[in-house]
Amino acid sequence: MINIREVAKMAGVSPATVSRVINGTARVSAEKRARVLQAITATDFVPNEVARSLYRKSAKLIGLIIPSIKNPYFTQVASIIEHMATEHGYRVFLCDVGDDIEKEEIALQTLVAMNADGVIIASTNEAIQDYAAMCQIPVVAIDSLFATKRIDAYVYCDYYAGGRMAAEHLIECGCKNIVCIKGPQRIFSAKARYEGYRDVCREHGLREQTVTCDYDFKAGLAMTEQLLETFPGVDGIIACNDVVAISTYKILHRKHISVPDQIQLIGFDDIEWASLISPELTTITQPIQRMATKAMELIIDNEKTTEKGVEIVFPVTLTVRETTKKKGSCK
Amino acid sequence: MINIREVAKMAGVSPATVSRVINGTARVSAEKRARVLQAITATDFVPNEVARSLYRKSAKLIGLIIPSIKNPYFTQVASIIEHMATEHGYRVFLCDVGDDIEKEEIALQTLVAMNADGVIIASTNEAIQDYAAMCQIPVVAIDSLFATKRIDAYVYCDYYAGGRMAAEHLIECGCKNIVCIKGPQRIFSAKARYEGYRDVCREHGLREQTVTCDYDFKAGLAMTEQLLETFPGVDGIIACNDVVAISTYKILHRKHISVPDQIQLIGFDDIEWASLISPELTTITQPIQRMATKAMELIIDNEKTTEKGVEIVFPVTLTVRETTKKKGSCK
Repeated sequence: MINIREVAKMAGVSPATVSRVINGTARVSAEKRARVLQAITATDFVPNEVARSLYRKSAKLIGLIIPSIKNPYFTQVASIIEHMATEHGYRVFLCDVGDDIEKEEIALQTLVAMNADGVIIASTNEAIQDYAAMCQIPVVAIDSLFATKRIDAYVYCDYYAGGRMAAEHLIECGCKNIVCIKGPQRIFSAKARYEGYRDVCREHGLREQTVTCDYDFKAGLAMTEQLLETFPGVDGIIACNDVVAISTYKILHRKHISVPDQIQLIGFDDIEWASLISPELTTITQPIQRMATKAMELIIDNEKTTEKGVEIVFPVTLTVRETTKKKGSCK
Repeated sequence: MINIREVAKMAGVSPATVSRVINGTARVSAEKRARVLQAITATDFVPNEVARSLYRKSAKLIGLIIPSIKNPYFTQVASIIEHMATEHGYRVFLCDVGDDIEKEEIALQTLVAMNADGVIIASTNEAIQDYAAMCQIPVVAIDSLFATKRIDAYVYCDYYAGGRMAAEHLIECGCKNIVCIKGPQRIFSAKARYEGYRDVCREHGLREQTVTCDYDFKAGLAMTEQLLETFPGVDGIIACNDVVAISTYKILHRKHISVPDQIQLIGFDDIEWASLISPELTTITQPIQRMATKAMELIIDNEKTTEKGVEIVFPVTLTVRETTKKKGSCK
């Protein structure tokens, strides 16, 4: 078994110099550095912090894998996890992987190799579960749900109830011609929200009118233009999330269509921007703080269990602000 | 020198099983797993991907250290870096560290230990340079500047010119009573922007009127309330960044103060939200795409050099949208 002193001896330097070269914490002359690296390579000596963490029970590291750092929903989740991690003495490594399952797998693999204490992942790829299920560290899905449940735990909220709530609110506000901007229907949560809207339409004998849109500003702008052409009589719009609702408002504002007087508008998520912009957005509130906290607790508090598919479902609530108005209300 | 076959032999399992235990890529029975871990501990064998990356010239990993994931400026930077990294076959690990120098150092240390190919850091702590300068991997500061320049490179933009440009634009728009919402003055870029405003005031014989505000929504709301009480005659506001400008607009809108008719408003950065909200924000545009691309190029294209303190300064530009209006303009 090779130790740092033997490497130092072989390189003709002090053990402190070997440590400096490995950790990059102080300058070492190029010539000494080359000798140390040669000795390290020759002996396969791996002494650094990461290597040591492989033997420790806990690396005090949490991985967070999200599909888009540009979606404020996920940056809020990340921020809550970061704060909670700091309180408990953990570091967080964040991986922004898009919808790319290969990047999700590489991120997961790297975090496992780093001996992370656990990974929180928001994914829309059902197949990522195959890999996640095999990991020897806890993996918790947040805002993700799949037909099959093969990983440790799923923290999400009642999307279907949210879809119903949005439609029922617009009906209470007097809308008779509601269009639902659906999220991509391969995503479980987007599908559940749409189904909530659909069922309320059927119960009230309203025509079901939808367009489909990615969770993205620009897609929201284009889709709103299209929606107004396809459904010129629209008097209420349910956006698939707040970001798209903000895009929708932008187009309506540009066309001098008054919100909520001519068209009422409701979003989904209740990201911080929803109450920062003017007018403030009526939306379906996800308890983001509670969801992120729960995901962290599942990793920090619990040992890896053999139980799979634990589901923790949070309720959503309606938050009425300035983009909807009840009939006869003088607000 | 211990290899995987010897560990497998000691544990009485196949080398594939040792690999599975280490990489967490497949289930191994608890009993076998315990034997493998015991053998690994006994031999100090460190074979995994991270360990191997220590010997490779490149870990194909870029670290990005930012002060706040909730500031859209930094999520845009992160998104650009992520896309560019993918194109070039790198992974990115993002660390959200606040203004906490200890967390910055831990993040940097971990990335060095992981043999990252380089680190891009946005920091307001001048002292982080002491640590960064000692790292044996390239470290590039982005949107950060200090009186002393002790690390490899600094990619930033001409903040002073931006401060001047904002003040000159409001003067051209007919403002005579301009208030500058300064960012925290310990931050080099905030100070330079303020100095640009100050010098223009002096040249035009205008009174210098300022408040100081953190780069944060909530701080912006409170500071705008205070600003309106302190300077009731204000007809132009320069916000320290776009996020604060959006907070400022919110308060003005709530108080039924028309923008730009009664008060003209200009931000700084030109984050994507600046053109997404309604009305669209007049602002000083930082070339975020070019800055982030340059920072990545410095890491991907270049070997570590002995040269320190390379400065790459980008120009800023005025982007006039809907929150300012020139005198006599019918826009």
